[in-house]
Amino acid sequence: MDTRSQPRAVCLLSGGLDSTTCLAIARAQGFDCYCLSFDYGQRHRVELEAAERVAHSLGVREHRTARIDLRVFGGSALTAAIDVPKDRGGAEMTSGIPVTYVPARNTIFLSFALAYAEVIEAEHIFIGVNAIDYSGYPDCRSEFIAAFENMANLATKAAVEGRTHLKIDTPLLRMTKADIVRTAVELGVDLSLTHSCYDPDAQGRPCGHCDSCILRAKGFAEAGLADPALSST
Amino acid sequence: MDTRSQPRAVCLLSGGLDSTTCLAIARAQGFDCYCLSFDYGQRHRVELEAAERVAHSLGVREHRTARIDLRVFGGSALTAAIDVPKDRGGAEMTSGIPVTYVPARNTIFLSFALAYAEVIEAEHIFIGVNAIDYSGYPDCRSEFIAAFENMANLATKAAVEGRTHLKIDTPLLRMTKADIVRTAVELGVDLSLTHSCYDPDAQGRPCGHCDSCILRAKGFAEAGLADPALSST
Repeated sequence: MDTRSQPRAVCLLSGGLDSTTCLAIARAQGFDCYCLSFDYGQRHRVELEAAERVAHSLGVREHRTARIDLRVFGGSALTAAIDVPKDRGGAEMTSGIPVTYVPARNTIFLSFALAYAEVIEAEHIFIGVNAIDYSGYPDCRSEFIAAFENMANLATKAAVEGRTHLKIDTPLLRMTKADIVRTAVELGVDLSLTHSCYDPDAQGRPCGHCDSCILRAKGFAEAGLADPALSST
Repeated sequence: MDTRSQPRAVCLLSGGLDSTTCLAIARAQGFDCYCLSFDYGQRHRVELEAAERVAHSLGVREHRTARIDLRVFGGSALTAAIDVPKDRGGAEMTSGIPVTYVPARNTIFLSFALAYAEVIEAEHIFIGVNAIDYSGYPDCRSEFIAAFENMANLATKAAVEGRTHLKIDTPLLRMTKADIVRTAVELGVDLSLTHSCYDPDAQGRPCGHCDSCILRAKGFAEAGLADPALSST
């Protein structure tokens, strides 16, 4: 495929359901995709292997993994010795910001994506944030994304010199988890490659009880589909 | 000293003249300072030792160094195999953004500072950016800082829950290099501990010819003072 005329996009990719679907949408929109994952000391590092599989299956141009040590600050169940909460119901899940929140994580991830975009001269950054079926993280909201985009256009050499205008694309923002599952299936994504669990076992199998597993199961149930990642383990 | 009633601040500290003076101002304003440095693959890693010395001499509460690999993207003379420009005059230095610019560096540094501030519940982040005697980096301008502050107040759990309001403090923004030197001396800072050069030799001695060395020398000359970092090497 001739990709010389395709616009470039940096796509943040964790290897989970949301970021994978977001990447598939960017590909379907004709972007030449440069994926970025993070090794940040997360307890669910198995997601990095999922990200690698997903990037390969979706035909991306490049996939880089940046090592950053978010454990230097602690403060989250995903990076510190704090238990990941299990079996929380919907009301409980949306009633506050949970301990799995990693301080400033999306700000940090988007900042690295901004550096990557500047170097490869991309004008788009895709991020699979979702403000419907989500865990209540502040940095998943549209107000935050808009403020980041505004800041980004004052931050870079290319933007200041007027050569580029950076756009943060959030195609999943208003989708339910069921919409996300359906969209992925319509786009031919192999969801068995994805990994969503915050607290997998030593073999990388999902726990089925953390917020992320519960939201994923809800999405498949409402879409009337079986989760291929469960049937394959 | 009883510091229980002192407000906390995260202070970005490279160990150079500007960030050191900025830290001294934060201390003089009564802040309990938590310093943050970055090991980002810079060719002038000797600055990390300077940061450690400076933090100790100014009596900070804590000093952390985060390892982040900005070389994953390349694109700058400070992190990639690109020559650091030498002996540029004033007009040349301010006529464009130089190759020593690291893509999105201050955005990334401030994002980590934001995470740190959230974990220790600080409402202030001090950064020694300067828009007068500077190298023309876009992320040293007041518009950028204001946009980052706006974004930060939408990004964190504490801000969204209304418990804190984050302020980015830039006390050097409108100072000349001579003002910065004079302020540091007035505050009793030992400037022999600081390191500014982008391209030091194997013994850590400054080259005297990069933009950073030239701006530093200009500051001392205009303040009518000798640079103690030069006389001590």
